Amino acid sequence: MSKKKIGFAQFEPKVGEVLVNLSAVRRLAAEAKGADLLVFPELATSGYELMDPDEVRVFAEPKQGGATHETLLDLAKANNCSYVIGYPEVEGDKFYNSSMLVNPDGSTYNYRKIHLFSREKELFNSGDAPPAVYETKAGRVGMMICFDWIFPETARMIALQGAQILAHPSNLVLQWCQRSMFARSVENRLFTITSNRIGSEERVGRRLTFTGASQVVTPVGETVSKAPETEEFIGLADIDPSDADNKDVTEYNHLFEDRMTGLYGSLV
Amino acid sequence: MSKKKIGFAQFEPKVGEVLVNLSAVRRLAAEAKGADLLVFPELATSGYELMDPDEVRVFAEPKQGGATHETLLDLAKANNCSYVIGYPEVEGDKFYNSSMLVNPDGSTYNYRKIHLFSREKELFNSGDAPPAVYETKAGRVGMMICFDWIFPETARMIALQGAQILAHPSNLVLQWCQRSMFARSVENRLFTITSNRIGSEERVGRRLTFTGASQVVTPVGETVSKAPETEEFIGLADIDPSDADNKDVTEYNHLFEDRMTGLYGSLV
Repeated sequence: MSKKKIGFAQFEPKVGEVLVNLSAVRRLAAEAKGADLLVFPELATSGYELMDPDEVRVFAEPKQGGATHETLLDLAKANNCSYVIGYPEVEGDKFYNSSMLVNPDGSTYNYRKIHLFSREKELFNSGDAPPAVYETKAGRVGMMICFDWIFPETARMIALQGAQILAHPSNLVLQWCQRSMFARSVENRLFTITSNRIGSEERVGRRLTFTGASQVVTPVGETVSKAPETEEFIGLADIDPSDADNKDVTEYNHLFEDRMTGLYGSLV
Repeated sequence: MSKKKIGFAQFEPKVGEVLVNLSAVRRLAAEAKGADLLVFPELATSGYELMDPDEVRVFAEPKQGGATHETLLDLAKANNCSYVIGYPEVEGDKFYNSSMLVNPDGSTYNYRKIHLFSREKELFNSGDAPPAVYETKAGRVGMMICFDWIFPETARMIALQGAQILAHPSNLVLQWCQRSMFARSVENRLFTITSNRIGSEERVGRRLTFTGASQVVTPVGETVSKAPETEEFIGLADIDPSDADNKDVTEYNHLFEDRMTGLYGSLV
């Protein structure tokens, strides 16, 4: 029942400039003073619009021991904060659109995006495991990445494992997600942190403009932090993660015990 | 690729006054001139706050052959329109919070609410089958009832069966659902019609005030009809039901084929 400070660092990663971006990550982490959990956007180290697998190879890192992991290990220990960040992962000859979670004690966890969006299918493999839930400085956290949001199954799998907070690194080009995270929050009664990027990229004959408006939404649908659409912004909210443990909608209704799983067979 | 007129009749059912309410249904059906599909609220024949199973017994009807079914058969044929309405159903010694769908050709289908809300658990049995999808004058329709909305599994099961329109009779006391049906619409790419009631009831030591704001939302999240919160209102929209057949989010993404069902096992 103790308060935790959770939120996002919305910024503009520069495509292909990993060291510049990690520098921004260090700066933003320092500015987010007192945070217990801070979420950065999807592919925040590399930028979004990579040209082809050869370019992914240049910027991809292993899930542990790369520059991004080393940076976050330092920051997590120095700032006593848990961090989530999106990055391109390499393992053997495979690439993933991944996020890592790094805790102050050095414990590190990884999630590989399972629902790839558009051209990402030409660059990455789909994640090979469902999302899991991990202890952090701010409570139990599950990760999903950007387009995963449109599949309600993703957040549901995270919530059913007891997550109190859903960390959601994103590179969103519409506002559909931001509008829909109200539903994801209340249908699962957990906190959601959508950390979106800003700015635009034009590399493969199309201009992508990202929509910012990162947000923190509570288990009862209150937006307790909201970023502008076009500016860098650190959004933090003081929350009690145990609020997410109460799944009683009414005295008769427990959100998870009321699921009629015996009738849901057609979903899988 | 032909246009259909679909919508809702938001009104205030009077608790315990079935004949008065069926009279309102006839009047509203006549006013909704030219509709192909019209959805009435949940428990629109009986009112919401029934005292106990003995009172449910007084107002409950069999799924075919009762006053409500006979009324809708007449209306559907006379107006060449498909209707959906919520009513208390009796079969043997069991009661259900149900909705019936009646087509101009007399074909009739029934859905029993699977996720009961609050005191409904003292009055009704949960539905014993998942929702199905049926042909109507306006396209392929699936039904869910009120609190079913908060379980994303319900709309998902309907959409995966090829529904173009989700008919959603409701008696909502918050605005959470109305806010969330944007997500239900875009995550499944179908039309949703939430038909809510207005007015209030005070019968069991509590006052319930219903929140109106019935709406029709398109597969891409556009609200094409919206009722006020406190007034009777017929909302109709001209739509092309085949818009719901296009599940291509991008040239790389088909909303249903992209579902990673091999990873969803924990959901059931």
